[in-house]
Amino acid sequence: MSLIVQKYGGTSVGSVERIKEVAKKVIDYRNQGHDMIVVVSAMSGETNRLIDLAKQLNDDPRGRELDVLLSTGEQVTIALLSMTLEQLGMPAVSYTGSQVRILTDNAHNKARITDIDDDKIRADLKQGKVVVVAGFQGCDEDGNITTLGRGGSDTTAVALAAALKADECQIYTDVDGVYTTDPRVVPEARRLDHITFEEMLEMASLGAKVLQIRSVEFASKYNVPLRVLSSFTEGGGTLIAAEDPSMEQALISGIAFNRDEAKITVLGVPDHPGIASQILGPVAAQNIEVDMIIQNTGHDSTTDFTFTVHRNDYKAALKILEQTADKLGAREVNSDDHIAKISVVGVGMRSHAGIASTMFTALADENINIEMISTSEIKISVVVNEKYLELGVRALHKAFNLEQDPAA
Amino acid sequence: MSLIVQKYGGTSVGSVERIKEVAKKVIDYRNQGHDMIVVVSAMSGETNRLIDLAKQLNDDPRGRELDVLLSTGEQVTIALLSMTLEQLGMPAVSYTGSQVRILTDNAHNKARITDIDDDKIRADLKQGKVVVVAGFQGCDEDGNITTLGRGGSDTTAVALAAALKADECQIYTDVDGVYTTDPRVVPEARRLDHITFEEMLEMASLGAKVLQIRSVEFASKYNVPLRVLSSFTEGGGTLIAAEDPSMEQALISGIAFNRDEAKITVLGVPDHPGIASQILGPVAAQNIEVDMIIQNTGHDSTTDFTFTVHRNDYKAALKILEQTADKLGAREVNSDDHIAKISVVGVGMRSHAGIASTMFTALADENINIEMISTSEIKISVVVNEKYLELGVRALHKAFNLEQDPAA
Repeated sequence: MSLIVQKYGGTSVGSVERIKEVAKKVIDYRNQGHDMIVVVSAMSGETNRLIDLAKQLNDDPRGRELDVLLSTGEQVTIALLSMTLEQLGMPAVSYTGSQVRILTDNAHNKARITDIDDDKIRADLKQGKVVVVAGFQGCDEDGNITTLGRGGSDTTAVALAAALKADECQIYTDVDGVYTTDPRVVPEARRLDHITFEEMLEMASLGAKVLQIRSVEFASKYNVPLRVLSSFTEGGGTLIAAEDPSMEQALISGIAFNRDEAKITVLGVPDHPGIASQILGPVAAQNIEVDMIIQNTGHDSTTDFTFTVHRNDYKAALKILEQTADKLGAREVNSDDHIAKISVVGVGMRSHAGIASTMFTALADENINIEMISTSEIKISVVVNEKYLELGVRALHKAFNLEQDPAA
Repeated sequence: MSLIVQKYGGTSVGSVERIKEVAKKVIDYRNQGHDMIVVVSAMSGETNRLIDLAKQLNDDPRGRELDVLLSTGEQVTIALLSMTLEQLGMPAVSYTGSQVRILTDNAHNKARITDIDDDKIRADLKQGKVVVVAGFQGCDEDGNITTLGRGGSDTTAVALAAALKADECQIYTDVDGVYTTDPRVVPEARRLDHITFEEMLEMASLGAKVLQIRSVEFASKYNVPLRVLSSFTEGGGTLIAAEDPSMEQALISGIAFNRDEAKITVLGVPDHPGIASQILGPVAAQNIEVDMIIQNTGHDSTTDFTFTVHRNDYKAALKILEQTADKLGAREVNSDDHIAKISVVGVGMRSHAGIASTMFTALADENINIEMISTSEIKISVVVNEKYLELGVRALHKAFNLEQDPAA
């Protein structure tokens, strides 16, 4: 018997019929002897309906009042799910974030959890009840309702799992797990049975949008095993957990990619200390986030400096750069918004040489020119022309044999 | 400068446009220098929508979970109204029942308020904020959300007015005050400028459904002046307050009536102690409420016993009575579900003789036979054949000159 926290998102509880399905799934687990805590989101569409009402009355509503409004969405779901469980003969009790209480700071609309009071929940679990908790919300020290921001229900689930030392935190979504890459690009893509926190963080931030990155960070920090599963199909999903040294790790777990970046290069800037901050300072001042940054060794006392930004910020960033380049006496600015980034991710590369070489060879074999390279301990990213994205991903997926289960 | 509590019902906040109208009205009062507390209901239709969702998932949901669900209705409104006030430049803050906190017993769906913590509200008022409070809800000592039952928002408003010693509690509805009788029956019916608590209680319980009777009782108990006004039209409404000895009271304030009762008579029952409880005991045991009860002096050691019940309970009550009559050896049971009750109400009748006589003469002049009579200190009720209802009410309205303002 173990303690399991399950989280169901808006689509999973989007109708009366789906709430019934969730209740049945929860009861199945409970009947296997597990203690169950269930975290739910607002029914799909409800949060947008509320925001729409608010916008009709105030073009910039104060965070505190917006949180009072939005938190009703999950409150409706916890009541409905508890009722459904009880209708099916399973004792249940619901809690809002304030009732638990899930204490947060007072940053409305994007609050961070600071403490969770687990007394009531433990008492209910001891009585055999299923505990249903509203995701996405908490309250500050003065009792003001706060929300954690979009996707915050995942964070609630992980935080509860951490506070109650749950054996597993299961996140139910509309996908059945984490794949080696996007199956729409590579039909042979394979669902991973397990992946490490670090790999998942690299995959998520690189565009494999299965889980909120914040909840993965949280799970990693408190070492809560996290499982991604589908609400709609059977299957064990993907377990995201700390690296297990006893387990043979695959060299590469997956291939992430995105095509929503653009690159800007400043050529021939004076190679002296502080140049990077002089170039990126004005960009950051406009709240433009920079992803990859590359500066190569200079020559003739000048250097070339390249970075990527989101395509939505491309024009604004370019405008800033043209001014900066003038000031710095740079030779030239050039840029490209038809690029794609492809990354291979895997903790196995720590202890294995030759990953980069395999990657570059596979791309070269397809005549794909690499425009930028950036590496971290468990990932290698390259920037290529956008038109080579699918071809590159497929070539790499094959080169690393990702269609085959390494355990098989 | 005074402290005013205003309450707006579901129709008054039933749309984005109406919430804007409410905000403007509140700001008008605030700008006149009054401290303002505003109690709101759920937007019209919302409570029924939520109940409908619940019924699809549980045919008899537990009170605790139903309260978690229903309380979201008012929570949405407080957030929307606060945002609207702020959009219009008026500082505002919203509170749920739990946040205030409005402490209740734990009788879910029909909880009673036991205490109100006024610290936060006083602090906000001192800062010049409009305080917006969710009606209909509170929490018990363990922090469980409770609701006060339908119409409970009126009770919330009166309870807040009592706790904060407000100068006036204004209840906004879709009628513009309390009338001498139903204007649909008597076009000359006149809006009363003021009426005493006692009269209002008699009027309300007799069918003039303007205010929840519980909130009038509460206002009377704590001596909170209550004003009924329309959200949609201008006008001073009707002030419901304690009797003011310095004020000349009208003889009769109004004429209440209903046609939803039926009468049952047991003829020739043995006239001995305990007979009333033997007759009504089995009726009460079936949770059937009895309104009028009349027993006249007996003769030949038997007596006749008559009572009225709601028409919905008529058949059930009659069935019980036929059994009881057999047991008691009564001569006969007869009954009539085509009756109407007409009552004249007024504190003035305490100090004036002849009211009953005027009433009976007016009815006799129209050839209306009186079937039953029952009196209290400030009311005289008669039961007549249902077909005479409108005629009787009009005759009495005229006999007591209710179309004329007594102050005029």
